Amino acid sequence: MEEVKVLGFWTSPYPHRVIWALKLKGVKYEYIEEDIYNKSDLLLQSNPVHKKVPVFFHGGKIIAESTVILEYIEETWPQNPLLPNDPYARAMARFWMKFLDDKKPNLLAFFRKIGDEQAKAVKDAQEIMTILEQHSLGENKFFNGDEIGMTDLAFGLITFWLEVMEEAAGVQVLEVNRFPRLQAWIKNFKEVPVIKENHPDKSRLLTYMKERREVHVKTATS
Amino acid sequence: MEEVKVLGFWTSPYPHRVIWALKLKGVKYEYIEEDIYNKSDLLLQSNPVHKKVPVFFHGGKIIAESTVILEYIEETWPQNPLLPNDPYARAMARFWMKFLDDKKPNLLAFFRKIGDEQAKAVKDAQEIMTILEQHSLGENKFFNGDEIGMTDLAFGLITFWLEVMEEAAGVQVLEVNRFPRLQAWIKNFKEVPVIKENHPDKSRLLTYMKERREVHVKTATS
Repeated sequence: MEEVKVLGFWTSPYPHRVIWALKLKGVKYEYIEEDIYNKSDLLLQSNPVHKKVPVFFHGGKIIAESTVILEYIEETWPQNPLLPNDPYARAMARFWMKFLDDKKPNLLAFFRKIGDEQAKAVKDAQEIMTILEQHSLGENKFFNGDEIGMTDLAFGLITFWLEVMEEAAGVQVLEVNRFPRLQAWIKNFKEVPVIKENHPDKSRLLTYMKERREVHVKTATS
Repeated sequence: MEEVKVLGFWTSPYPHRVIWALKLKGVKYEYIEEDIYNKSDLLLQSNPVHKKVPVFFHGGKIIAESTVILEYIEETWPQNPLLPNDPYARAMARFWMKFLDDKKPNLLAFFRKIGDEQAKAVKDAQEIMTILEQHSLGENKFFNGDEIGMTDLAFGLITFWLEVMEEAAGVQVLEVNRFPRLQAWIKNFKEVPVIKENHPDKSRLLTYMKERREVHVKTATS
C-alpha cells in the first residue's frame, strides 16, 4: 500500500476537504502541518505552481488543488462514493463545487473590508447565498441527496469558517431566516460524525481570525 | 437516442470546447446560436445562475459550465476518451484545466487595458505563460501525451482567440522564441482535423475583437 500524506494548515478549509474525504473512505494518511507564513521547502517543491495547501502525496505522486485531489481520491478509493453514479447528478455536483470556488473571493471579501465597502461586500455575499438558496440544494438533506458527498465537503467553508469570519469581522452574511435551506444544510453537515470530529476548535479559530481581521483593518481603505 | 443541443456564441472559445468534444466523439448535435448582447429566454431559463454560454442540452437534462459539460460528455460517451485512464494523469489534466480557468481573467486582462496598465497586464499574462511553459506540457505533443484530450480543448482559448486579441490590442503576449513548448503545442493543436475545421474565421473574429477593443479603450483609464 502506497503511503498517503496531506500537507495542510489548521485554519484552512481546503485541506479539511481532503481530510474529510479520506476519513469518509477509511483511507489512512499522515497529516503534515505547514507554516503558510514561512513556507517549507516541502510545500515550495511539491506545489511550485500555487505554493498553497493542501498538497496530496500518494506514493511518489503529488497533487495540488483540493477539488482535483477530491476527484483523485474518488477514483483511487471508490468505496463510500463521494459522487453519485449518474453522469447528470455528477455534473450538478461539479457545477456547484465550481460555483463555490469561483465565487469564493466575492463571498469572503467582507473579511478584508471596512465601512461602506464592507457593507457592499456583505450584500454581494448575500446575493451569492441567495443563488445557492434558490438553485442548489432544493429539499435535499445534502447536495446530492441523502448522503454527504464531494460537494458538501467543498462547501465546508461556509460552515465553521464563515461563522467565525463573520464574528471576527462583526457582520452577518447568513442572516437568520433568510437562508433556511442553507441553514438546514449547515446543521445536517455538522452532524455527520466525520465532520463533527474533524474541524478546527472554534475558540482557537476565532482568535486566529480576529488577528487576521486586525491586519486587514489596518491596511483597508473604507 | 436523446437529442443533444449546444447553445453557443460564435466568438466564444467556451462553446467551442464542447463542440470539439462532441465532434471528437462523433456525437451528433444541434447548434443554437445565442445573441449574448440580447440574451434569449432560452439562455436565461436554461442557465439562470450564470446566464452564459455554453449551455448543453441532452434530452431533458441541462448543464452549464464548459468544463463540467466536458466531464459529462466524457462519462456519457466514453468512445475516443478525452481523459487518460490513470487517476494521476486525470488529476494532472484537471489541474491544468482549473489553472487556466482560474488564471483566465489575468491572462486576458491586457485586452481591456491601455497604456502602463496594459503593459503590466501583458507582463502578468507572460508570467502565467511562463508557468505553463515550465510545468505543464513537458515534451509532450498534447497535454496528456500523444493524443488530443480535454485539457487541450480547454486551452483552445490561447490559440485562435489569444492571437486575434493580441492583434486587436496591439500587444504580444506569446513572444516568439520565449515559449517554444506552448508554440509547438499551438501548432499541434491547430493541425488536428476537428480543430482545423471548427473555429471562427480569423478575419471575422478580428473584426469583432477590434470592435470590442474600441469599447474597452473608450472606457479604460490608463
